[in-house]
Parts: sequence; C-alpha cells; structure tokens
Amino acid sequence: MAFKYISSKENPYFKELIKLKKGYSANSLFLVEGKDIVFEAYKNSCLKEIICVEENDVTKQFNNIKTTYISKNLYKEISSFQSLNQKIIGICKKEYSNNLGKRCVYLDNLQDPGNVGTIIRSSLAFNFSSLVLSLDSVSLYNSKVIQASKGAIFHLPIIHNDLLSICRGYNIYLTCIDGKDIMEVDKLIEPFILVFGNEGKGIKKEYLVLGEKLKINMSNFDSLNVASAAAIFLYKYSQN
Amino acid sequence: MAFKYISSKENPYFKELIKLKKGYSANSLFLVEGKDIVFEAYKNSCLKEIICVEENDVTKQFNNIKTTYISKNLYKEISSFQSLNQKIIGICKKEYSNNLGKRCVYLDNLQDPGNVGTIIRSSLAFNFSSLVLSLDSVSLYNSKVIQASKGAIFHLPIIHNDLLSICRGYNIYLTCIDGKDIMEVDKLIEPFILVFGNEGKGIKKEYLVLGEKLKINMSNFDSLNVASAAAIFLYKYSQN
Repeated sequence: MAFKYISSKENPYFKELIKLKKGYSANSLFLVEGKDIVFEAYKNSCLKEIICVEENDVTKQFNNIKTTYISKNLYKEISSFQSLNQKIIGICKKEYSNNLGKRCVYLDNLQDPGNVGTIIRSSLAFNFSSLVLSLDSVSLYNSKVIQASKGAIFHLPIIHNDLLSICRGYNIYLTCIDGKDIMEVDKLIEPFILVFGNEGKGIKKEYLVLGEKLKINMSNFDSLNVASAAAIFLYKYSQN
Repeated sequence: MAFKYISSKENPYFKELIKLKKGYSANSLFLVEGKDIVFEAYKNSCLKEIICVEENDVTKQFNNIKTTYISKNLYKEISSFQSLNQKIIGICKKEYSNNLGKRCVYLDNLQDPGNVGTIIRSSLAFNFSSLVLSLDSVSLYNSKVIQASKGAIFHLPIIHNDLLSICRGYNIYLTCIDGKDIMEVDKLIEPFILVFGNEGKGIKKEYLVLGEKLKINMSNFDSLNVASAAAIFLYKYSQN
C-alpha cells in the first residue's frame, strides 16, 4: 500500500482533518488519538484510516489500514494534546442505531466536551442502553468528546436528536437542583429517558413539564459538575 | 488608585502572570478567571489584585483592589479560555490550614487539572473536611484546577503533602478496581482518609497496604473517569 506524506497546510486532505477535529463531518467520520483508543476503534471495525508522524511499532499493527504520514507541525494542529506523546490518530466511522433501548441518557445543551465524553463512559459502565445529545450540544464528533469517552463511544448507541422527537412512550426523569431526592426513589420505571442539563443553566424550561424532577441532596455548596452528578445518578440507577 | 497598562510580553509583571498561570508561585498566589469566581474570591477575602482588558461594570465592584489593564493579546496568553468571553482575572491568595479534620480526601498523582478541580467541588458539596494532593499531583495553583473547582477552593482546606506524612491516626480507604464493593460498606469510620489514584495507573502500589480497598461495581466496560468515581464515593459517604 502506498503511503502519503503531507507537510503543507494547504493540502486538501489536511484541511479535511482540521474540520474533523472540530467535529464537522458530512460522513460521520471522526478522529481518535492515542494507540489504545485507535486500537479500540480497530477492534470494533470502526477504524478507516491512520495518520501518524512516523512509522513505529504501533502503526505496524494496522497493516491493512490506509496510512498517511504528516509533519510534526501539522500533527500538532490536529492533535488534542499539547505534547507529542501520542503520535497516532485514527479516522473512524461508526454505524449509528436509532434503537434507544429502555434506559436512555439525554444530554440537553451540554457544551463541555470533557463532560460529554465522561458521561458517555459512565453510561456504558452502568449499563444504560443509549445516549442522545440535543442538537445544540457539543458535537458527538468533537475530538475531546471522543477522547474523554475512552473508547466507550464504540460500544454505546449515540445520536443527536431533540428530546421532543424521541420522548413518546418513555418515562422522562429530569435531573435538577430541586425535585424529589433520589434517596427516596429506588428505581426508575423503564422505558425511561434520564435528562441532564446545561453546565450553567440546567435543563431547558420547556422540558421541565415532561416528567419527574429528581435531585441529589448536597450538604454544602449546592453545586456539582454535571458529569459528577451524572455519575451519581447513573450509578444509583445502574442495572446489574 | 493608579492603573497600570501593560502591552509588552517583556514586562516583568506579565512574566510573573505567566508563571502563576502554570501554577508556579513562591507566595501561594494563584489566578482565577471570570466574574463569578473572582467575586467568590473577593467575598472570601482572597482577592489581592485584578487584571482585565478594559474597565467595565464588573471591575467597578472591586474599587479597593489594585487593578492592572493589559492588552487583548497578553490577556489571551494568561487566559484559560480560548474565547475572550471572560475578561477579568483575579490574583488570589488563600491561607491554608493544616487541620485536615475527620473526613479527608487524598489524591495520589492526579494529573488532569479538570479532574482535580471537579473532585474539590464534589468534596465540598458532600461535606468532606479537607483535600490533600500528593506532591506529584498537578499543582493546586494550576489555573484549570481553580477554574474547575468553581470557587470551592475558597471554602475547603487544601494542601500538598505525602500520604505517608499525614496518615498516622487515620483509617485509610483506598479506591480501586478490586476490593470490597461499596454496596457492602455503609459507612467509613472516622477519622479517615479516602484515597483516589492516578487516572491511568491508580493508587501507588506501596500505598495499597495502608488500609482497606473499596470498589464500585460496574456492569460493563470496567472503566470510570476518576472524578466520576470520586463523585460516587463522596456522595455515598457524604455526611448530612
């Protein structure tokens, strides 16, 4: 297989990579970085191409995958890391299912890619069936989302959609700073959608009438990171 | 009060700010960014100076605090944000107490500042008495730690120290991927130190003999972000 080498910022292929890094993809392609997660993509048949700085032991593992070499300077521009510790990026594609299952997590207008990736990881760890991102949330294809998910993105059905388009037939549970204390709610009734809101503003007002509000009782400081709150909810309502 | 205006990268004051951004401070000074957290510092008597791009309604609130104006380009270099939405940075100093109380959280070699800040926030929310960062963890004064703590840093005693130097007289609980399931442990016996380990490697091997290992039972994918795991532990063992 022929290898390409790119060192110009004007190269059209490189320009496409920059778009992918930002989460813009017409073909649902996305980037993952670092050998562990690239290998995870490979195992799940999601790895389409590899980009790296130089040939090494890692790249040799993927000898049936199209490989492009790029200069260090270009690599740094598409990398999510400031150091050059990770020297391999995979271009991935995943087939998305619209089957949300009985235990769906919904993220309403989440903006921090680290939070979204972390919640994807927790959703998988605690056996939720799918995750839906609102249309105004950070893109699922944002490289930091993928990175923070640590490969969980390859295992969980995840789509972008609007809550109003998917809520029919589901019990809706809304995580808030008021509402019923989760200590008093042993179980969520399936099929359900568990909704988490924006980092600063919480869940959109118009959604608050759709179901039951639930809260975490805090001793102090009444404020939790949304991914931390999600971890507590997802653990509490995990299915063994 | 006279206002300074700085537009040169060679300015010694600016160079000091760059050091503070990286978390190096001989005087335990640190930076916070954004009006909410600067105001939180002010309320807690921790705000020493202000740096901003231009005078605005926010800066007028702090009229007894030394204010330095800097150019947009310099501001971007000390800012933790890529956009210029936040236009105010506070230089803060906090008096640290060595009294760790009965419910201490210990972070062993944590490297991600977002994780550390998030765990500080959760520790305060769930009424832990202090947080200790190992000497090889990210600096408590790193601007992203402060930012992710959302002001919790001003309320919780936090220091850097080694576990072996502080563990005497404490029950040690070690969070791991093996050990006793926390479903079977209703309560931690005070005074205790609850230890969380490095993002990739977990807790240092030599510490694992110091106490009881505890784990979160996961259905799937045996992997959680450390701040998510911490949220679950801290909620479970919160004190109302």
